Amino acid sequence: MRYTLEEIAQLIRGSLYGPPNLVITGVNSPELAKETDICVIYDDRLIDLVKDRNIGAVVVKEGLSIDKPYIVVSDPKAIMPVLLGLFLKKKILQGIDRTAIIGNNCNISETCFIGPYVVIGDNVKLGERVTIMAGSKIGDEVVIGDDSFIGYNVIVEEKTIIGKRVKIQHGAIIGKEGFGFYRSKDGYIRIPHLGNVVIEDDVEIGANSIVDRATLGSTVIKRGTKIDSLVLIAHNVKIGEDTAIAGQTGIAGSSEIGARCMIGGQVGITDHLRVGDNSVIFAKSGVIGDLPSNSIVSGTPARSHREWLKAQAILLKLPKIIKQLRMKDVADNDKG
Amino acid sequence: MRYTLEEIAQLIRGSLYGPPNLVITGVNSPELAKETDICVIYDDRLIDLVKDRNIGAVVVKEGLSIDKPYIVVSDPKAIMPVLLGLFLKKKILQGIDRTAIIGNNCNISETCFIGPYVVIGDNVKLGERVTIMAGSKIGDEVVIGDDSFIGYNVIVEEKTIIGKRVKIQHGAIIGKEGFGFYRSKDGYIRIPHLGNVVIEDDVEIGANSIVDRATLGSTVIKRGTKIDSLVLIAHNVKIGEDTAIAGQTGIAGSSEIGARCMIGGQVGITDHLRVGDNSVIFAKSGVIGDLPSNSIVSGTPARSHREWLKAQAILLKLPKIIKQLRMKDVADNDKG
Amino acid sequence: MRYTLEEIAQLIRGSLYGPPNLVITGVNSPELAKETDICVIYDDRLIDLVKDRNIGAVVVKEGLSIDKPYIVVSDPKAIMPVLLGLFLKKKILQGIDRTAIIGNNCNISETCFIGPYVVIGDNVKLGERVTIMAGSKIGDEVVIGDDSFIGYNVIVEEKTIIGKRVKIQHGAIIGKEGFGFYRSKDGYIRIPHLGNVVIEDDVEIGANSIVDRATLGSTVIKRGTKIDSLVLIAHNVKIGEDTAIAGQTGIAGSSEIGARCMIGGQVGITDHLRVGDNSVIFAKSGVIGDLPSNSIVSGTPARSHREWLKAQAILLKLPKIIKQLRMKDVADNDKG
Repeated sequence: MRYTLEEIAQLIRGSLYGPPNLVITGVNSPELAKETDICVIYDDRLIDLVKDRNIGAVVVKEGLSIDKPYIVVSDPKAIMPVLLGLFLKKKILQGIDRTAIIGNNCNISETCFIGPYVVIGDNVKLGERVTIMAGSKIGDEVVIGDDSFIGYNVIVEEKTIIGKRVKIQHGAIIGKEGFGFYRSKDGYIRIPHLGNVVIEDDVEIGANSIVDRATLGSTVIKRGTKIDSLVLIAHNVKIGEDTAIAGQTGIAGSSEIGARCMIGGQVGITDHLRVGDNSVIFAKSGVIGDLPSNSIVSGTPARSHREWLKAQAILLKLPKIIKQLRMKDVADNDKG
Repeated sequence: MRYTLEEIAQLIRGSLYGPPNLVITGVNSPELAKETDICVIYDDRLIDLVKDRNIGAVVVKEGLSIDKPYIVVSDPKAIMPVLLGLFLKKKILQGIDRTAIIGNNCNISETCFIGPYVVIGDNVKLGERVTIMAGSKIGDEVVIGDDSFIGYNVIVEEKTIIGKRVKIQHGAIIGKEGFGFYRSKDGYIRIPHLGNVVIEDDVEIGANSIVDRATLGSTVIKRGTKIDSLVLIAHNVKIGEDTAIAGQTGIAGSSEIGARCMIGGQVGITDHLRVGDNSVIFAKSGVIGDLPSNSIVSGTPARSHREWLKAQAILLKLPKIIKQLRMKDVADNDKG
Repeated sequence: MRYTLEEIAQLIRGSLYGPPNLVITGVNSPELAKETDICVIYDDRLIDLVKDRNIGAVVVKEGLSIDKPYIVVSDPKAIMPVLLGLFLKKKILQGIDRTAIIGNNCNISETCFIGPYVVIGDNVKLGERVTIMAGSKIGDEVVIGDDSFIGYNVIVEEKTIIGKRVKIQHGAIIGKEGFGFYRSKDGYIRIPHLGNVVIEDDVEIGANSIVDRATLGSTVIKRGTKIDSLVLIAHNVKIGEDTAIAGQTGIAGSSEIGARCMIGGQVGITDHLRVGDNSVIFAKSGVIGDLPSNSIVSGTPARSHREWLKAQAILLKLPKIIKQLRMKDVADNDKG
């Protein structure tokens, strides 16, 4: 891919200071950028990284200038995804591979791509421009909205409803029955799961992550929520809009997470809890009780992040503190 | 699916109070149930959920009555899996898909289902009514007992022995070589794994979970044990009967877990340990020493759950307590 | 497989004390070894395990002797992988399965094995004796070095560079885009990932593990590093040579791990950190700050392992200690 500097300036809505016809063939980080690359500098201190090197052009924020061709934008961080997107090689995939196996009564537009060795059940409805990569399995009565992407070797079980512009990364498993058993005196008896999973528009589910279907009703991931890899979302969980969940986190059955939460990696949330909107749960926390909106928590059991930090700091000094206190006691006793 | 109330009452062995010929077409939760649905009420307080709504029928425990068609059973929780099972749509799958690749000298009954793009090695023996879903790979000399279910994209490596009525959920990997290396001065040298995995009757292994084969001998999961998704069972581990292990838990090499244990999610158990029968390990615990039977533990290192709770509570108050104690010291010193 | 004792002694470079023509058909653990098996005894105390049993032969360290055919070696632990390797049944796999789909302009030697239902993109270059098991997907422009092994259902995305003798276990996902989003006031905007993954010689990546590609530049796993199952390596991470990482660990974006580190299971390392060479991070630790070389740490936040152990020990006794200190205060006050 190649753009002139002028084209790039227009596409990222910036002001150009440099030769409009200069050809740029790639975007790179400041430390790796070469003579036909463009890079982005968020911070004055990073200017040194590019100063004495032969770099095509630089995107900077207002107020910064630099002795190279540059484009000024008001928010370079916001422009980064746009700029990267300009140089992302998009392979246009379309059509149904001859090895794909499609069930009865499916509704699949000509704008879709169904890759090799995909297996699709009956009564499946795909929107426009849906991509299903090789090796994926789609169960009966699944619905997938326009422009959604299903990666390689994904499994989407029956009756799952997926919105528009959803991305299900490779190896993810959506809609399998949850881990529900009745414990009888003769051992565990499986509880059949009759519900489904509903994934709203603009959601992303990470690689090898799992979203279990509901026992009854739906497990729901609301619009705009982004979930990383190796995450486990159990049956009947509800997750609000625009929440982000980092890798290897697990949310147990029937818990409800609010909107715009930020949940770190390797967090565990037990079952039947409510986490309020806008909460921040630091990595590795273990949440075992409800959290009100706007909570900021850490540790297991999860508590105020600030208090947790204090407690951890004091825990480390504890052997010394206790010794001191005991010494005082001894001193006091000696005095007494 | 549709049943009369009388049929349902007979199938769940309950006493019917209502019109025997009323047709029920689904089971649902009390808050979602509609006019032809049946629901289960475990608890008097939940009766309000259904009181003023048009619901087909309700299952209640003895001693409860309700102003709708209802069926009385002695233990509604125990009846729930049965009732859900009545409405579970079971697709009957049978036969070997023409795209399945089967090795030499296999023993596969006509009652089995082998899905599309399955690859099966040599000398594999499947019992009656075994289901292997699309995209799974079964290695040489694997044995799978009657009525077992292998999900989509599962990998079962050579010499694995699987019992009857076992369920291996999608993406699980059974029998791969363990994470064993000899650390020489020139780096790590792989230790070949010659053992296998033995999974007894009625076990369930969760989605994307991994059970490594033994270096020598067998990794063993005993009868009735249920393992959730994204769990890692390392080489030479033994797990007793009717134990339940929640998601994202890991058990390191050669550890032995007893029967009827309950292990929470995201638990870590280090290698070469013994956990006694009937132990309860709370979520996120890190077990780094042997546990006697009937242990109830939390935290890392795992210790008595009660003591852990106390310690966590005091930890939170510690900054204040220490300040108080120091103040006392100062006060005492002033007095002294 | 069958060897004479003399052949085995030569292959493991040991001194034979026993009949050279004795035929050995397997290797086993001391407690399971049978009359034509050989086993290894690391430790005098284990001699009792084999004393009164009919075992083919025993490998012992210098200075030990035993009343059975035996072979003396200087370091039995180092010989174990060699001995196990002698009895590992290696199926010779070669050729391209007729169901494999290969893109344009690929370079695949006749010594390679490409299994059933593999899908390979364009411009892929495979070295000699590369094995790609059934169901794997290899993206455009991937390079894989000699003697590397790609397990079942593995996904290797475009532009990934894999060295020689690398092992990618089943279900692993290499090179998918990282979990990177720009948080705008209208929700999350995906950051395109233009970088790749570089995996050097002799690396092993575990089953269902994930290595994300870099936003720009490369995510790098250096020579000899061994990574267990269900591990998450985020975008732009660099891992040094000969480091070992146990199962279910996660390393967040752009962190750099040194050479010869040992990282336990379920460890979390936050983003943009540096962990120095030869560090030991105990299982379940949460690393939230840089660690100098030769660190030995535990806990969350990770700190000196020794101090952490002390702090945990005192934490457990805290309720009693505080009570004692308060009692003293009361006593002191009474005295005062």
